[in-house]
Amino acid sequence: MATEVFEHKESFTLENGTILPEYHLAYTTLGKLNAKKDNVVWVFHALTANSNPADWWPGLVGEGRLFDPATYFIICVNMPGSCYGSIGPLEINVQTGERWYHDFPMFTTRDMIRAYQHLKNALGIEKVYIGIGGSMGGQQLLEWAVEEPLLFEHIIALATNAQHSPWGIALNASQRMCIETDDTWKEKNQEAGIQGMKAARSIALLSYRNYDTYNLTQPRDKKTAWPVAHHFGGEAAESYQRYQGEKLAKRFNAFSYYRLGQAMDAHDLGRGRGSVAQALQRIKAKTLVIGISNDLLFPPEEQKLIANLVPGASYELINSLYGHDGFLLEYDKIETIITGFVHEESKRYLKIVN
Amino acid sequence: MATEVFEHKESFTLENGTILPEYHLAYTTLGKLNAKKDNVVWVFHALTANSNPADWWPGLVGEGRLFDPATYFIICVNMPGSCYGSIGPLEINVQTGERWYHDFPMFTTRDMIRAYQHLKNALGIEKVYIGIGGSMGGQQLLEWAVEEPLLFEHIIALATNAQHSPWGIALNASQRMCIETDDTWKEKNQEAGIQGMKAARSIALLSYRNYDTYNLTQPRDKKTAWPVAHHFGGEAAESYQRYQGEKLAKRFNAFSYYRLGQAMDAHDLGRGRGSVAQALQRIKAKTLVIGISNDLLFPPEEQKLIANLVPGASYELINSLYGHDGFLLEYDKIETIITGFVHEESKRYLKIVN
Repeated sequence: MATEVFEHKESFTLENGTILPEYHLAYTTLGKLNAKKDNVVWVFHALTANSNPADWWPGLVGEGRLFDPATYFIICVNMPGSCYGSIGPLEINVQTGERWYHDFPMFTTRDMIRAYQHLKNALGIEKVYIGIGGSMGGQQLLEWAVEEPLLFEHIIALATNAQHSPWGIALNASQRMCIETDDTWKEKNQEAGIQGMKAARSIALLSYRNYDTYNLTQPRDKKTAWPVAHHFGGEAAESYQRYQGEKLAKRFNAFSYYRLGQAMDAHDLGRGRGSVAQALQRIKAKTLVIGISNDLLFPPEEQKLIANLVPGASYELINSLYGHDGFLLEYDKIETIITGFVHEESKRYLKIVN
Repeated sequence: MATEVFEHKESFTLENGTILPEYHLAYTTLGKLNAKKDNVVWVFHALTANSNPADWWPGLVGEGRLFDPATYFIICVNMPGSCYGSIGPLEINVQTGERWYHDFPMFTTRDMIRAYQHLKNALGIEKVYIGIGGSMGGQQLLEWAVEEPLLFEHIIALATNAQHSPWGIALNASQRMCIETDDTWKEKNQEAGIQGMKAARSIALLSYRNYDTYNLTQPRDKKTAWPVAHHFGGEAAESYQRYQGEKLAKRFNAFSYYRLGQAMDAHDLGRGRGSVAQALQRIKAKTLVIGISNDLLFPPEEQKLIANLVPGASYELINSLYGHDGFLLEYDKIETIITGFVHEESKRYLKIVN
C-alpha cells in the first residue's frame, strides 16, 4: 500500500467558474498495474472516509478479499474538499498564503472526477476494469461514467443516486444549520464549528441507519429508564449519538463537512446534459446497481431508477438491518453479488466475441 | 371557546421526586358540559401545540366538524413544560421569585396526566366520552387510560407509542445537541438557545415527513440547481428547513423544547408497572389505535403493538404521503375511521345491554 500526492500544477476551472491555479490529490494504491494495464479497480470513498479502502472497506478490499492487491491495481483518491491529503479548506490557498477555511470553493461531484482525470492520465491508465463506489462515492463514479463513457469496463454503484433528492438536501441543510449555530463557526481556525459538526454527525447517523437498527443496537435500558432529577440522558441511544459526534470531531473538520455536504446536494447527472435520463443513457460500462433495503438516505427506488436508465444495467437489492450503512457493513452479500455480476458479464462477453 | 387557568395551590410531587408547592394549567374548552356530564371529549396536544385544538386540528374540531362544540364539551390542556399558559420554564418559580429557565423540572407524560386529574376533578368530570391524542398527545392519553382505567369510555390514540423508541430518543438527543451547540443556551433569558432550536426543529420536521413528502412538496428546481460561487442553498428543500426553524422560533422557546423532548423520551407505560404489556392490559376504554403509513417517527408497528395488547382494541392504518404529520393533516380519513369506530362501539354496547 502506498499513499502519494498528485500535484496538478496547471490551472483548473470548477463548474462554478472558480479558477484554481493548481490542486493536489492524495491517493492510495494497492497492488500493481499489470503489463496490459487491464487490472485497475478504482474505488470512490464516501463523505468522511479517506483514500485507503482497506481501512474503511476491509471486508472487500485487501489480501484474500474480493479486491485483492495480488490481482488488481486498486486506486482510491481522497475527494477534494476533504481533509485526508487532497486540496481542502484546512490547506493553504497558494494565492493568499493563508488557509482557505470558509473560502474553500465547492468541488461538485463533476469537478471531482475532472480532477481525477488528470491523475488517471498521469498514471497512464486508459481503461478501468471496475469502478466501484457507494453513497457520495457512487455519485462520483456515475459522474465519471457519464463524462467518459469508454473509461470503465464495469461500474458498481451502491446506495447512491443520479441526482441528490430534496429529502437528502433537507437532511444536509439541517446539518449545515447545526454548524452555523456554533458561534465559533465564524472563526478562522481548525476547530471552528466543531460542536456544530458533532450535532450534524448525529443527524447524519440517523439517516445512515433506521428505526430497526436502533432497536437492535441501542435498546432501552430498563434500569436507567427512570428519569433523574432534571435530566434525561442515560439511554443508550442518546449516549451513542453523542459518542459518534465526539468520534468524528477527532478526525474531521466542520469546513470539509459543510462543503462536501453542499457538493452532495448539488449532485445532478442531468445538469447541462438535458436530463438525468439522457445522462445515464450515455453510460457504456457494464453496470451493476445495488440498493439496500430500508436505506433512508438513498432509498432503493433511486438505484432502481439508475438501473432502469443505464443501458443493460443490473439491479440487486440487499436486505440489511443497517439501512444506508449496509453498503459498508454487508460485505459478504456485496461480494456474492459482485462476483456473480463480473462472472456473468465475462460469460456474456465471451459469447459475444466467440 | 374559553381559555382559562387552573391553579392548583397544593404541593405536587413529580416522578423524579421534585416537590412543586403549586402548579397551574392553561386549558381551553369548547361547547358545554351537559347535565348528564357524558359529553366530554378530552383532546391532548402534541409537542409544540397549544390548548386550542380548533387552532391546530381545524379539520376535526369546531363547528360542523366531527368534534362539534354544539354536541360535545371539548377540553384540551396545555401540557406543563410548554409555553402556552401552563407552568413552564419561562414562568416564575414561586420558590425563588425568578424564572425557571434551565431549572424547570421534567414533567413526564405520567406527571402531566396526574396534574390534569386535579383539573378534571375541579371541573366535576367523572367520565370522559372520548379521549383523543396523537404523537406526544397520544402518549399522555395512554398514560391516563392506564392510570385511571375507568375514566375513558373511548380512547383514540394516533401515531403514538407505549414506550418511546431508541430511534425516537436518538432523534430527540440530536435535537438537544443542536440546542447545546448554541453558545447562548447557557444564558438565562427567553432567547437562550434559539438558534439551536431552529436547527432542532429542522431535524424534527424530517422525522414528521419523509422522502416522498419532500419529493412532492419541495422538488428540485432545475433553474436554481446550478451551484453558485461558494454556496449551495438555493434549493427549495433547504429554504423550507430554514423557514420552518424561523417560524417556530417566533412562537416557542428552547427551554420548553428541550425539556418536552426529554419527557417524550422518558415515556414508558411499563415503568413501575411490570411491563408495557401489563400496563396496556389495564386499559378498560374502548380503544382505537390509528397508524400512519410511512410515519418515520412513530412507525405503524408501534400502534399495532398497542392494539394487540389493549383488550379488544381496534387498529386502523391511514395511507398518507405526509408520514407522521398525517395525524394532523389527514382529517377526512381520520374522521371516517373515528365515526365508524364510535358508531360500531355504540352498536356493540346496545347489543350487550339489550
